Amino acid sequence: VRVGVVGAGQLGLMLAQAGQPLGLGVTLLDPSPDPPAAAVATVLRGDFDDADGLAELASADVVTFEFENVPAAGLERLAAAGARIAPDPAALAVSQDRLAEKRLFTVLDIPTAPHEAVDDAASLRHALDQVGVPAILKTRRLGYDGKGQRRIADDGDAGDALAALGGRDLILEGVVAFSRELSILAVRGADGQTAFYPLVENEHRDGILRVSRPAAGVDERLQAEAESLATRLLDRLGYVGVLAVELFETPEGLRANELAPRVHNSGHWTIEGAATSQFENHLRAVCGLPLGSTELVGRSAMVNLIGEAPARPDVLAIPGARLHLYGKAPRPGRKLGHVTLVAAGDDALAHRLETMLALVRAPG
Amino acid sequence: VRVGVVGAGQLGLMLAQAGQPLGLGVTLLDPSPDPPAAAVATVLRGDFDDADGLAELASADVVTFEFENVPAAGLERLAAAGARIAPDPAALAVSQDRLAEKRLFTVLDIPTAPHEAVDDAASLRHALDQVGVPAILKTRRLGYDGKGQRRIADDGDAGDALAALGGRDLILEGVVAFSRELSILAVRGADGQTAFYPLVENEHRDGILRVSRPAAGVDERLQAEAESLATRLLDRLGYVGVLAVELFETPEGLRANELAPRVHNSGHWTIEGAATSQFENHLRAVCGLPLGSTELVGRSAMVNLIGEAPARPDVLAIPGARLHLYGKAPRPGRKLGHVTLVAAGDDALAHRLETMLALVRAPG
Repeated sequence: VRVGVVGAGQLGLMLAQAGQPLGLGVTLLDPSPDPPAAAVATVLRGDFDDADGLAELASADVVTFEFENVPAAGLERLAAAGARIAPDPAALAVSQDRLAEKRLFTVLDIPTAPHEAVDDAASLRHALDQVGVPAILKTRRLGYDGKGQRRIADDGDAGDALAALGGRDLILEGVVAFSRELSILAVRGADGQTAFYPLVENEHRDGILRVSRPAAGVDERLQAEAESLATRLLDRLGYVGVLAVELFETPEGLRANELAPRVHNSGHWTIEGAATSQFENHLRAVCGLPLGSTELVGRSAMVNLIGEAPARPDVLAIPGARLHLYGKAPRPGRKLGHVTLVAAGDDALAHRLETMLALVRAPG
Repeated sequence: VRVGVVGAGQLGLMLAQAGQPLGLGVTLLDPSPDPPAAAVATVLRGDFDDADGLAELASADVVTFEFENVPAAGLERLAAAGARIAPDPAALAVSQDRLAEKRLFTVLDIPTAPHEAVDDAASLRHALDQVGVPAILKTRRLGYDGKGQRRIADDGDAGDALAALGGRDLILEGVVAFSRELSILAVRGADGQTAFYPLVENEHRDGILRVSRPAAGVDERLQAEAESLATRLLDRLGYVGVLAVELFETPEGLRANELAPRVHNSGHWTIEGAATSQFENHLRAVCGLPLGSTELVGRSAMVNLIGEAPARPDVLAIPGARLHLYGKAPRPGRKLGHVTLVAAGDDALAHRLETMLALVRAPG
């Protein structure tokens, strides 16, 4: 079985690493001169919507993607030409448009932030009336890691925010008073079978994920609530593969923030911490193979290495530290790698995580 | 840090797979046209004692080996020329000579089978007097997976066995009445730090390892006995890297059978089942990095896929099954891959292992 992947960043790298032991040939497409996945697999060089590159990728048995800003139109053309694409490009299209995404949540009775479309000063005034302040004005498309958004604390901020974001194709979102950010990773097989990883708690800084850890105090009810909303999304989208849903926990229950139709940074811990990793399960799903068990094996947490990586011996001296470097040159704000801390129990995990966090707060 | 590896079979493949996330560049040397490791790393093509290939390999920061029948002389020449080789080629030389190996055990007070050198009919008669029957006549060198040995049930078998094995450079070993075969995987860092994985129980058939599973009923005393004998070997050899010691359990305690100065098939379960895999720990050791924790993460067992592999969906349908295919063409007796079964506890593990064993006993 051969799999084509649009994008060859670290997610493509880890997909390729997961596919190799299964005997799945993974080929990727990426415009970068030196993408992370090239260290372990064949990478075709071309833009994400390069027709020739996509056509070559489509000679594989199935095409998937690791990057949500892939132009959906190119994949839709491939699908129209008979290529098998998983997940369906429609899921990609929804995820690329914050308004479509929020509307999908609403249609499926999945609670989310109050929101209104904004295309000019008049619709922004209307939206502020509906949503209230503080609120966040965002571009509908191509937002990523906190880029493309402005906070509106009071009506006086509105004009500047509107101008800064281009004045149209925007969405105003109410601020959700949440106690913490969670995410659920779900996977749906070609046969409709589903599986879920336990909720994890995510800590962002400057809009970039820093830490994912087991969400403390999650009872069966909360896990079931998350699985239920993820199931509605999977089924509605006829989804095949791994889907990540970012959630806010509030006193009134979970609020969906956004979805990512791909393997997700908050699931990297599954490489070591689950019976089957998100990468392997995504490949299993898109290849029509049985899904793997998502049960926990020990306790795990993940720390991203952003901008610069601590010295390797310092990381490796932490018991249970599993280092994953992506082979990228250091640059402020760039995800260079991650470390998964594994332990037999919660206390040992907390201690190891604390040691690791001290390293990234004061990199050597 | 760059690592050169002599040999690019499945052990080289898994070393390369372990090195990549750590940012260690792994280059390998192998004469095969299509060695397993070539799927994920650069493989220089050349014989294991090819001077040019070895010299190119030695441009790395450290050279190691994944195959114990590498001619030690070539590595010793590299070491003499200033290359860093780990483990020391002396360990390789000992492991290649069953007599030297048994003598090393004896010198270190490590119980082993009674044994005598055999170089002709007279020394065989003497050896049979000393060791008794039944006994096993083996070539001193190049024995592998049960090849190069003959059982002598009574004195009448002696002449044929001697002739079949070439008549000289042999060793006669007494048969050890053991209850089971165990192995211990040990690792020693460049600084002399050591770590050990828990004893595993191994099941061989036709001289080839079939299954490794957690050794039931191992108490602290038995684990300590194994660690103690491994420590004596590591220290005596000034060893750096992973060392495997195959052991027989007898009513009188452990008997060392043989050592392997490399990562070992009975440690493949550590990829999923330990906080740090044997492959990563070998690389950490030879690169002078801190050793990783060897503590268990869940419970794991391993089943080799010999000769032909069961259908992929059948394997992947087993909860907690982690498939590792080496990309080799099927051939009777050939190790094509392995499956690690992981589970949260012993009961689930036993059930999963049983399901997997049914598949390899009756491959689809």
